[in-house]
Amino acid sequence: MADLETLTPTRRARGGGGAARRAARTAVVIETEKYIERNIPNFEVLTEEALQIIEHNAETVLEEIGVNFPDNPRALDLWRAAGADIDGDRVRIPRGLARELIKTAPSKFTQHARNPEKNVEIGGNSMVLAPVYGPPFVRDLDGGRRYATMDDFNKIVKLTYMSKYLHHSGGTVCEPTDVAVNKRHLDMLYAHMTLTDKPFMGSVTAPERAQDSVNMCNILFGEDFVQENTVMTSLININSPMVFDDIMMGAMEVYAKNNQACIISPFIVGGAMAPVSVAGTLTQVLAEALAGIAYNQLVRPGAPVIMGAFVASIDMNSGAPTFGTPEASKILYGAGQLARRLNLPFRSGGSLCGSKLPDAQAAYETANTLNAALLGGVNFCLHAAGWLEGGLVSSLEKLVMDADQLGVLHSMAKGVDVSENAQALDAIREVGPGGHYLGCAHTQANFKNSFWRSDVLDYKPFETWADDGSKDTVELANAKVKKMLSDYVQPPIDPEIDEKLRAYVQARKDSEPDAFG
Amino acid sequence: MADLETLTPTRRARGGGGAARRAARTAVVIETEKYIERNIPNFEVLTEEALQIIEHNAETVLEEIGVNFPDNPRALDLWRAAGADIDGDRVRIPRGLARELIKTAPSKFTQHARNPEKNVEIGGNSMVLAPVYGPPFVRDLDGGRRYATMDDFNKIVKLTYMSKYLHHSGGTVCEPTDVAVNKRHLDMLYAHMTLTDKPFMGSVTAPERAQDSVNMCNILFGEDFVQENTVMTSLININSPMVFDDIMMGAMEVYAKNNQACIISPFIVGGAMAPVSVAGTLTQVLAEALAGIAYNQLVRPGAPVIMGAFVASIDMNSGAPTFGTPEASKILYGAGQLARRLNLPFRSGGSLCGSKLPDAQAAYETANTLNAALLGGVNFCLHAAGWLEGGLVSSLEKLVMDADQLGVLHSMAKGVDVSENAQALDAIREVGPGGHYLGCAHTQANFKNSFWRSDVLDYKPFETWADDGSKDTVELANAKVKKMLSDYVQPPIDPEIDEKLRAYVQARKDSEPDAFG
Repeated sequence: MADLETLTPTRRARGGGGAARRAARTAVVIETEKYIERNIPNFEVLTEEALQIIEHNAETVLEEIGVNFPDNPRALDLWRAAGADIDGDRVRIPRGLARELIKTAPSKFTQHARNPEKNVEIGGNSMVLAPVYGPPFVRDLDGGRRYATMDDFNKIVKLTYMSKYLHHSGGTVCEPTDVAVNKRHLDMLYAHMTLTDKPFMGSVTAPERAQDSVNMCNILFGEDFVQENTVMTSLININSPMVFDDIMMGAMEVYAKNNQACIISPFIVGGAMAPVSVAGTLTQVLAEALAGIAYNQLVRPGAPVIMGAFVASIDMNSGAPTFGTPEASKILYGAGQLARRLNLPFRSGGSLCGSKLPDAQAAYETANTLNAALLGGVNFCLHAAGWLEGGLVSSLEKLVMDADQLGVLHSMAKGVDVSENAQALDAIREVGPGGHYLGCAHTQANFKNSFWRSDVLDYKPFETWADDGSKDTVELANAKVKKMLSDYVQPPIDPEIDEKLRAYVQARKDSEPDAFG
Repeated sequence: MADLETLTPTRRARGGGGAARRAARTAVVIETEKYIERNIPNFEVLTEEALQIIEHNAETVLEEIGVNFPDNPRALDLWRAAGADIDGDRVRIPRGLARELIKTAPSKFTQHARNPEKNVEIGGNSMVLAPVYGPPFVRDLDGGRRYATMDDFNKIVKLTYMSKYLHHSGGTVCEPTDVAVNKRHLDMLYAHMTLTDKPFMGSVTAPERAQDSVNMCNILFGEDFVQENTVMTSLININSPMVFDDIMMGAMEVYAKNNQACIISPFIVGGAMAPVSVAGTLTQVLAEALAGIAYNQLVRPGAPVIMGAFVASIDMNSGAPTFGTPEASKILYGAGQLARRLNLPFRSGGSLCGSKLPDAQAAYETANTLNAALLGGVNFCLHAAGWLEGGLVSSLEKLVMDADQLGVLHSMAKGVDVSENAQALDAIREVGPGGHYLGCAHTQANFKNSFWRSDVLDYKPFETWADDGSKDTVELANAKVKKMLSDYVQPPIDPEIDEKLRAYVQARKDSEPDAFG
């Protein structure tokens, strides 16, 4: 940590007078809670017998059916050397081999932020919350639904920076469709590196873009620091069922070789990319995760890695993916149990919903998923805020609404205090039958920290609320979005580093023509 | 059960030609799921040490501080005879006495409906869902927020009857303010007895109204049947902190003497009627429940009883009660643990929210509470649908929205099937890497029952949804409310019984002048 304190640009920048003044000016506004450390048990839906059946079947899948690593001779060579049976692209993994290979993966790791106060621990009883990832559209009350641009991207990064309960800046918080496909990762990375001081994710859409991510981190953190520490956690989706495509694997290889963390995540719409049953889907999730994580460890033993499970159901009437469903929750709970038995950090959950609007449907589905994520032991929660319309849309208002609800998770995770003060026996004595607690000494001493309080939702008396325009949650959140963006002040960064980042981005942009689509 | 089949009016009515035709006509529309039987573990936030501290402190409260039974010489006599220390209205209960007295209460009981297919088991691993209780206002999209009338009451009873996932018709689903205070219970009971065939609650607003409830049940079920079976579950609130007011206790005495079930429920806004801390509130909840249930068992040992815990937090800025908060969830989970250690059925949870509208706030808060209710082991869930604005408003749309979400609880409660069919190994073999499950044999054989599907929420593609008017959840629910009310057909009832009920209501109405306020 001593190294980090002298190395990180934030610390250096804070020495400057202008930076110090800016820091003082923003001190009131920007508060980030520490990542969640659970002091409550995990909820477990699978019995020991069910776990053993699923684990046994997953090994059967790997051994008998196998997985595909197309167009990836590097992977096939590594697998062959490790003892797998190679047949074309197909890799059949003897029973127990993948499980043995993943033993080198750490059960917990630290992802460093440029502001070391915002480093996060991923694994064990921790829960780290990151915003929505991937939507090509954005929606807000003012502009409606539209293709996302870099301006929207920057807004979401700023809102995330300003959100107390989001610990992580995420990655592709929306797809900035106004920047060429082969260059937008550079602008996105620059935004995460300069508009916020929270940890972030790297690009995964091509191996060379992963390398750009590493190169830019070398500028931001210093090359030695990057090689010795995890400064990015990136999302490697498996092309379910059981295909590990070359582009994602290529990006993963870059990250693993550079000691950077990957989430190896089956991406499943149950009924389409996995069986319609919970047990069948969990079997496939486990088989895919075992194969992907084992390959990650073959590339670099000891590389930090997270077992992911992104699972939606399918609506058999419309074919649409559905979220916040009981089946998705059961799979989340079950996958968490399987990950813990592998001693791996676990990624799942989020503000998942299928609704087109940030309405009651969106909130029911989101709350169902977030409650399961907390109780199911999720360590890294991507999409924790702002997801809308099955992941097609990033909603500015929903980002702020969801981020506020994440406060509920923080408070739940603390469990129940049974200290003498919390027992409050003196208060019960003081007040007695028929009395009132509002004025008693215990209430006066404790009320400020006793109850979690929303910073978005309406708690007004009906008449006041009506006089204020009878606003619904989206309207309240819209005002909050505007206030946050107006209050936003960029966290200080060493101008020299900033200049080097800009130069890198420009040079890479100049090196090839724009590609779209 | 044989007795009931010959006794209940529904069965007899079904013998008639008109009734049979009506039954056939409605068979398609009206489907009621069996009450939930949990096949999943309970979530427990309190450690064994915490439980013991709270249990010890609750006994200290009963012994040292005591509880008040004002204006109730019957209660004081019973308590004195049982060994309590009486000082004015104050009853101090020696350590362990209340716990000993409640041992006669059953851990589980059946509440009978006039349609025996709709009987419910309360206790053990069951969960019974009943609608909102108590609001003086109603709200819908067409009429806005207004004082509730008997017409609204009837609509809510009908919607509840038509709702697949509501097992119970509830009680005061809204306050029909257009009927005199001293007479409205008669109309409400008549509605529950004739517009639906689900089980219901009795009146508690005066001992003589409780007696009316028993008398009307004697007409509906037969007097012998009522004395031998539970046909009502009624809500007895404790006036927290620690006051058992004479009116509520008077109603409870009527029910207990007639072998009818009571929910003995502390009604707490934490910070006002109980300490600001979770552990302190749980201590008071347990002390109050112990005293109330012990008194119930003193009145009639073996009377069916439910331990309740209705708990909201207080917003210390506005003084408003808040719902769906982490503190409320912790208290729900903890109170469930305490009830199970007493071997008593447990009541808590519901569609609780503080929002003025059925918007995202309402849904976040409701989903937080409903998830906790399921995982916290609630046996009787009052307010499970339709609650709005801190209980001031019954919302027709939210009733339908919430009732639909209760389907999520049903499916979650089933746990994970690990039968050979559910393991789906053959499906994984058939599809293989890169394949698609939609067409495979396992999917075709299982898809119909694999995924819970909402009957209210929107799963359409964006373009279809936009073409259909870009409706939000409330608009979708509004259409559903109208369709349900238009499809509604009254379940058949023996005309003779109906006539006797009408005559009873009329005679009682004629016996005294209207009272308002």
